[in-house]
Amino acid sequence: MNNAGAYWLWYPGDLERYHAMKQNFSRVERGCPWPAFWKSDGFRQRVVFRRTYRLAEETECTVYGNPGTVGHVVAGERKVPFGTPFTCGPGEVRLSIHAACIACTPAVYVAGDVIRSDGGWMVEDYCTPPVEAARNRYFTEPDQDVAVWPMVEECFLPVSAETVNGGALYGFETELTAQVEVIPAESGRPLPLVYLGESRQEALDTEACYFFCRPDPATRRCPRQAVRWVFLPGFSPEEAVVRAHHQRADIPVKAAFDCGDPELNRIFAVAAHTFSLCCDVFFLDGVKRDKWIWGGDAYQSLFVNRYLTGDRDIEERTLIALRGNDPPLTHVNTIVDYSLLWILSLDVHADTFGDEAFLRRMWRQAVSLMELLLSQRDGDGFLRGRPGDWEFVDWADFDREGPLCAEQMLLAAALDAMARRAPDQAEAVRYAEMKQALMEAVEQRFWDGEQGAYVDSFVSGRRHVTRHAAILAIVFDLVDEPRKQLLAERVLLNPEVPAITTPYFRFFELDALCRLGHLREVLAEIRAYWGGMLRLGAATFWEEYNPALPPEAQYAMYGDPYGKSLCHAWAASPIYLLARYFIGLERDPAAPSGLSVHPAPGFFSRLDCTLAYGEKTVEITIRDGETSVHVAQNGPERSKQS
Amino acid sequence: MNNAGAYWLWYPGDLERYHAMKQNFSRVERGCPWPAFWKSDGFRQRVVFRRTYRLAEETECTVYGNPGTVGHVVAGERKVPFGTPFTCGPGEVRLSIHAACIACTPAVYVAGDVIRSDGGWMVEDYCTPPVEAARNRYFTEPDQDVAVWPMVEECFLPVSAETVNGGALYGFETELTAQVEVIPAESGRPLPLVYLGESRQEALDTEACYFFCRPDPATRRCPRQAVRWVFLPGFSPEEAVVRAHHQRADIPVKAAFDCGDPELNRIFAVAAHTFSLCCDVFFLDGVKRDKWIWGGDAYQSLFVNRYLTGDRDIEERTLIALRGNDPPLTHVNTIVDYSLLWILSLDVHADTFGDEAFLRRMWRQAVSLMELLLSQRDGDGFLRGRPGDWEFVDWADFDREGPLCAEQMLLAAALDAMARRAPDQAEAVRYAEMKQALMEAVEQRFWDGEQGAYVDSFVSGRRHVTRHAAILAIVFDLVDEPRKQLLAERVLLNPEVPAITTPYFRFFELDALCRLGHLREVLAEIRAYWGGMLRLGAATFWEEYNPALPPEAQYAMYGDPYGKSLCHAWAASPIYLLARYFIGLERDPAAPSGLSVHPAPGFFSRLDCTLAYGEKTVEITIRDGETSVHVAQNGPERSKQS
Repeated sequence: MNNAGAYWLWYPGDLERYHAMKQNFSRVERGCPWPAFWKSDGFRQRVVFRRTYRLAEETECTVYGNPGTVGHVVAGERKVPFGTPFTCGPGEVRLSIHAACIACTPAVYVAGDVIRSDGGWMVEDYCTPPVEAARNRYFTEPDQDVAVWPMVEECFLPVSAETVNGGALYGFETELTAQVEVIPAESGRPLPLVYLGESRQEALDTEACYFFCRPDPATRRCPRQAVRWVFLPGFSPEEAVVRAHHQRADIPVKAAFDCGDPELNRIFAVAAHTFSLCCDVFFLDGVKRDKWIWGGDAYQSLFVNRYLTGDRDIEERTLIALRGNDPPLTHVNTIVDYSLLWILSLDVHADTFGDEAFLRRMWRQAVSLMELLLSQRDGDGFLRGRPGDWEFVDWADFDREGPLCAEQMLLAAALDAMARRAPDQAEAVRYAEMKQALMEAVEQRFWDGEQGAYVDSFVSGRRHVTRHAAILAIVFDLVDEPRKQLLAERVLLNPEVPAITTPYFRFFELDALCRLGHLREVLAEIRAYWGGMLRLGAATFWEEYNPALPPEAQYAMYGDPYGKSLCHAWAASPIYLLARYFIGLERDPAAPSGLSVHPAPGFFSRLDCTLAYGEKTVEITIRDGETSVHVAQNGPERSKQS
Repeated sequence: MNNAGAYWLWYPGDLERYHAMKQNFSRVERGCPWPAFWKSDGFRQRVVFRRTYRLAEETECTVYGNPGTVGHVVAGERKVPFGTPFTCGPGEVRLSIHAACIACTPAVYVAGDVIRSDGGWMVEDYCTPPVEAARNRYFTEPDQDVAVWPMVEECFLPVSAETVNGGALYGFETELTAQVEVIPAESGRPLPLVYLGESRQEALDTEACYFFCRPDPATRRCPRQAVRWVFLPGFSPEEAVVRAHHQRADIPVKAAFDCGDPELNRIFAVAAHTFSLCCDVFFLDGVKRDKWIWGGDAYQSLFVNRYLTGDRDIEERTLIALRGNDPPLTHVNTIVDYSLLWILSLDVHADTFGDEAFLRRMWRQAVSLMELLLSQRDGDGFLRGRPGDWEFVDWADFDREGPLCAEQMLLAAALDAMARRAPDQAEAVRYAEMKQALMEAVEQRFWDGEQGAYVDSFVSGRRHVTRHAAILAIVFDLVDEPRKQLLAERVLLNPEVPAITTPYFRFFELDALCRLGHLREVLAEIRAYWGGMLRLGAATFWEEYNPALPPEAQYAMYGDPYGKSLCHAWAASPIYLLARYFIGLERDPAAPSGLSVHPAPGFFSRLDCTLAYGEKTVEITIRDGETSVHVAQNGPERSKQS
């Protein structure tokens, strides 16, 4: 039997929802499992796959159910159990594969020369119209289990071992997401409690270390966990062999960057490693903490991923996982602005890959989410949170009385994206008109001509200004050029307006500064902020960095001495800033390759760089003021050929 | 630590939805698992339980998670893992138990003298307002697993063993739901393929037997299955020991019946055994087939259960399992009339137990289901199926052009129940007015004065009459007395109108005949139909019985030689008919006990009978024309006392 071209099949989105739950339920903090605190959308437990074949001759096939999946095949009039070969044809035969599983999404596999589980199977959930069954490149063999995501495993040995505090401390060259294995030299010696740290200080702090565990006696392995340092109390370094079995999703980094400046090269390389660790089955915020799928973090990951891996699938998986089932009853991660960023993510994804295939598939879900958002407008037309909704925007001292200006900017941006992407003209006009009306209302109520700025709240009368509304107006192109320049002068470059304190919103701010041409300031910030972490020995970039703090105080966050994630996806943004604004790689419908490269003058005297742009790979060389560019289209990743 | 008064807790309805899936996915037919073909509603996989205590002194407690449930407790500011004892108080302490599980409903247990999982815990699903956490009498010990329903197990040995067709045939005294164990006399002899039959004929038919399996090598047991006969090909009776480990839900039968007439006594006893086998975690249609939870079958089970076990919980579990989550997108089992019967079931349940507690809990779900039904009315106000909906009513040759009259009768009955049970006067008036308008429209369009009957369809012009609309008009009291008498004469007692062929609808027809006083005809039918099955050796009553067929043709149904279920809940209706109409036990608000007994004259010269009526037990004795009645209130079933 030929299995080429066959895949495991499931109901679209349900495998993503299953693995998203696994991911969001996987966080453990000091022995306490901490499942994510939002509505977790489930998968369908009973589905039926159908297809009609017109067969020229008799052919044999076998249907398999995923472990735990029960059901049978109806072939014409016959019922056949899973795992039993049967023949069909010649002539027309209708196949129905009934499948149910409580614990995981029901999945089936059909092996056969003609009849097999490739494209063209439909699936029904006994509620909504049939849709095409989903499959992916990771699940192509009949002996796989779709509940277990295939990982690439590599074994690393420590690069340092020392005796400290009456125990053995082992250090790895960089941070890993690994199952740490501990083999005591003395056979039969009980396995110790193992402390895993992102920092040396954390691993040695047996009181406050975030993750500790006793290895599984059978495998001698700890659960997969973010780790750079391993501490074994009561051991000397030679009394145990410690190995890290690093497990990563198979998402190759396509980018490389050498501009001759060691600091920038290192920033790019460490950002790439940081981001790569956070690319698991989904975009994660960080690998030690939260290990959750957050819509705001994922939005920013799209911009880095565009240039670094160009992996289409992780973007789609993440956006499916964030959105859940229709109808939407809650917001993405409960956060109103993350719902808006989810809609904007579809727009970014379509731009990265130069097609709207995924956006078309998700359009109804975008519309239903937008309708939920629009239903939350107040009498003035401004978006408000419901009880239980979280209007986050950023950790900042907003004046939160009444509607918040920054939230309205995000709504305007999302309406603009819906208007540009709507498949139907009337729909497009409706969203465009709503956006225009909203921006007019924003102008009337939030614009403060005297301050040359948007106030957070028009209700309170306090005329409090933060940077956020201005930044969003610029990056989402919601105001005209003179207004952008005014906002830059009076807000972004005004030291009187409180600084952005989170790297999350710093991403939007640096983007805005780049758009307005302030590249030198941005480069200086990259060297200061990201270079500053490197000077403190960072092997991955952190969730947050405050240069004013002494080194030993760098690991605390959220009131927890090791609460800070030292490998955080949003810290990889230099890749995006360098690629988009300094190297100047952008989509360009007028160019033959669909892309154009316009390096910003005066930054690179020489450059040897490879970048992804969606499914294209772009090689860029600069020598003596000359830029040469080579664009190649990648083949699909490991797709099976029939 | 004192565990008295502590229960496992979960999100209301979710344990029912979990076990309903297990049940509906458990059917196996000739090696083919056959999960039920309708939308299977899932459970919440992430919830949080909360409670605030005001503690007079320090107290200790321990929180447990069900196997597979991950999470932790937040007690004030502290986080505590499951399974770790901790102390709280004195003073106010707020406890939050975070819990997640993908494969089963997350469940928790709190053991402690003061802080424990009894009533008063609230639970949230991150989407809808907090509700009181659910618990039940079956899950009270910390070492239980809520995924495994506790069953009472009894071991039975065969009452016959013989050599037939080159194999050994073992017979049990009656039908069981058992794990059959096979112990070959010769140690090491391979376990044979085992054939399990409801009938002797089925067990011996190794080609077409519905259920066969090879016992688990470790336990030597087959999966739990309906069985009366066991066939081991190639064995002689003495070459194996065969035992049936009968497993049943712990729902005691409270009723007993002795009227001195052996045939009636036996009908009552066999009906009680039949129904008891079908009372599993939920009301099942049958124990060999389908083993599914059907809304129409469950509706009828309510009437038998009222008098036989008075078990409140199985009724509530079944109705919760049938209904699924809000908002309803599909009908109960996909069947429009089963949605209507679900609403009517709440009414019957409230009558049985003399309170509206469950109806109040489910009211919002009744309203949302009724709104779905009302949204399907056509321009004339008649209920229609949507594509994919099943308008079943009965297996009968209806004229199905346009709206079907019987379906409108059920809608009128459901509207009437909603009007009677609505907590709010305006709501009650709205439903009553809709019912009245509907019955007026039915009168205008479906009533055929010439025939003295309702036609199936007014659209086709064929004026085709079946019994169903007339029967429903009578049992749901939708027309006045003269009309009922006319319908009896022109339809029910008219041999020209095609007979009801299914025992399912025969239940409604016999009910209608009893209401109109035709008790002698009904008793004759009970003796003919149920007595007929007994004369063929039935140990349980069948899904269907056609006296005209020869014995060997009695087992076929749905085009399958052994497709007929020989132990089917709806065949237990003599219990209801005898209790309600012949013994005359009914709710009576005017009576001191809330019940009255009015035996129909001329049927019982003597009677020694115990019946349940909800949570009351009623002893009825008739001697020399004198009826004596004793009513006792049962204590709650095994409820834990704190």
